[in-house]
Amino acid sequence: MNGNKVKYDAADLERLAREVMVAAGLEREKAVVVAHGLLEGDLMGASTHGLALLQGYVEELENGEMTATGDPEVLRDFGATALWDGHYLPGVWLTRQAGLEASRRAVKFGIGLVTIRRSHHIACLGHYLLAAVERGDIMLIYSSDPSDSHVAPYGGVSALMTPNPIAVGIPAEPWPILLDASTSITTAGLCERSHREGKRLPGKWLLTPAGELSDDPAVFGPTQGGTILPVGGLDHGHKGYGLSLMVEALTQGLSGFGRPEKPTTWGAAVTVQVIRPEAFLPMEEFRAQVDWLVSACLNGDKRPGADEIVVPGQREMIRRDAALRSGLTLYPGVDESLAVLAGRYGLPMPTPIEVERKEE
Amino acid sequence: MNGNKVKYDAADLERLAREVMVAAGLEREKAVVVAHGLLEGDLMGASTHGLALLQGYVEELENGEMTATGDPEVLRDFGATALWDGHYLPGVWLTRQAGLEASRRAVKFGIGLVTIRRSHHIACLGHYLLAAVERGDIMLIYSSDPSDSHVAPYGGVSALMTPNPIAVGIPAEPWPILLDASTSITTAGLCERSHREGKRLPGKWLLTPAGELSDDPAVFGPTQGGTILPVGGLDHGHKGYGLSLMVEALTQGLSGFGRPEKPTTWGAAVTVQVIRPEAFLPMEEFRAQVDWLVSACLNGDKRPGADEIVVPGQREMIRRDAALRSGLTLYPGVDESLAVLAGRYGLPMPTPIEVERKEE
Repeated sequence: MNGNKVKYDAADLERLAREVMVAAGLEREKAVVVAHGLLEGDLMGASTHGLALLQGYVEELENGEMTATGDPEVLRDFGATALWDGHYLPGVWLTRQAGLEASRRAVKFGIGLVTIRRSHHIACLGHYLLAAVERGDIMLIYSSDPSDSHVAPYGGVSALMTPNPIAVGIPAEPWPILLDASTSITTAGLCERSHREGKRLPGKWLLTPAGELSDDPAVFGPTQGGTILPVGGLDHGHKGYGLSLMVEALTQGLSGFGRPEKPTTWGAAVTVQVIRPEAFLPMEEFRAQVDWLVSACLNGDKRPGADEIVVPGQREMIRRDAALRSGLTLYPGVDESLAVLAGRYGLPMPTPIEVERKEE
Repeated sequence: MNGNKVKYDAADLERLAREVMVAAGLEREKAVVVAHGLLEGDLMGASTHGLALLQGYVEELENGEMTATGDPEVLRDFGATALWDGHYLPGVWLTRQAGLEASRRAVKFGIGLVTIRRSHHIACLGHYLLAAVERGDIMLIYSSDPSDSHVAPYGGVSALMTPNPIAVGIPAEPWPILLDASTSITTAGLCERSHREGKRLPGKWLLTPAGELSDDPAVFGPTQGGTILPVGGLDHGHKGYGLSLMVEALTQGLSGFGRPEKPTTWGAAVTVQVIRPEAFLPMEEFRAQVDWLVSACLNGDKRPGADEIVVPGQREMIRRDAALRSGLTLYPGVDESLAVLAGRYGLPMPTPIEVERKEE
């Protein structure tokens, strides 16, 4: 919040997050996975979906809304697919397990899909993709939260859906394709943070309850009644709306638990799908196509005034590599929230590895 | 083109299209399926992807670019998945076969996926979905044409990708969800038609080669060098761009044939995926979720000035029902092109079932 630019060693932050969750009652094996997932959020620049979530997760562990021990219940196992009841276990851990299970099935059947009802929150989707593409898998993740509503159907103003992301990982070089895109223009997290900080959004991505366009995050939320526009906005938001319905159906529909049950626990309905390119053709033939595609994107002519052309996930990977090499700067306020948690459980706050003071 | 409002019996048009293709050399079994698919395009209002295509298909049959006889070659068969070489057989027939095959695999494994290299053009995606949801299947279709380029990567101006649609069918009531959405704001077909008719597009959906926004379809095309913007436009087109890359990878990547091979035949790389809700839970539990969702959309508050709220495919189904009941009005010019084809092969042009003349 001041001019300092404090950097931490990523491993130190991961250790702190892990020990905080263990102290709050989470099984160590799960705390390891969740801490890693939250850290990866910050490494990849998804700072609303990284360690900023730890405080909320700890509250949920302490009040029992996030289940601290046990395994998902397998409700249906059917060849290449499965349905789990997550019993509100940590979503980061559940989603990782579902990805591994879908991958095992894809090795056997070419494709695998696991859907989870009653997961807790699943944080940053990008990091699941990274693990998948490193295994040579294509991964798709769909997620919604039936306990919350931020997005209205196209043509409407009544909040019904969540931002309902689609995440897609494709193995490729020089960069894998790591797409993590909400089907609404922006996320609830960014609206809430911008509101807290008194900032406007970068575009008129919201609708007021009266149906007026707005970039003011103060209009957003259950009491104010504003909604986030679907991808495409007023111009062609029927497309984002349609994709958002697809996500609702592939998550709450397939898992059989969602808005009709009116859940109140912070959670997620999650579907993880893995496609194994090697079930179709030799990996080098798949890669000849996608590597060509990535190179063609990067080598195309740039629009005057635009940023460089990148593939989805490229900036995140560059940021991640730099932070792993020379330390991670947390989003303003997150280090303070970590210090509070560390103090509460008698854990040491990591020592910064670099402090640059302005004009001293 | 004049003030007449000519309607045809849908079955008459389907019969004519079928017999024209048989006369042009296509195996009858395939002509039956392709004629049905083209008719369905018009019934569902996708008039650039309906019988307007027949003339082009016939030319392709006559010059041998569309293969008239035979079967796809199964290059790989792997449990729930398969890779076919379509040898430029009619895409409408191939895609239907792939959908049936994916559905059979989904009955066995919960999910099935067939990817096709070197399909010919696949026309209107919506009608494959309709057949799938009537079987109780969820269907997803991805398609790209590696012989063509209309869409630049976000931040760029060099045409690289096609409009790369994603189509999704979800069984639901009172309306199934039938989404057929290109990942670019509009399609090449609409640009070409608007250009021919001297019309502007409904929005500034194009980029000139210099990177300026435009609604003038004259800037679009390989000689003019303009491109169609990805979904989200300049504001958040990184999302449409990412989805378009996904479609390229899931079609040309998985099928192992695409832009690196520089094909010149009008064609498609197609991936059809079926998920069987009944592999996860009783159909009524799935339907309780999606029917609730559809009703919640339809019953939400409308934005002042907006059209009614619909679910994707609802308008198409209403139009289709009306046209099946009381006749189909073809897009201006299409009946003339059908009359030319009928004349060429000595076939009778259907008699209109209704002619309303203006002010007579």
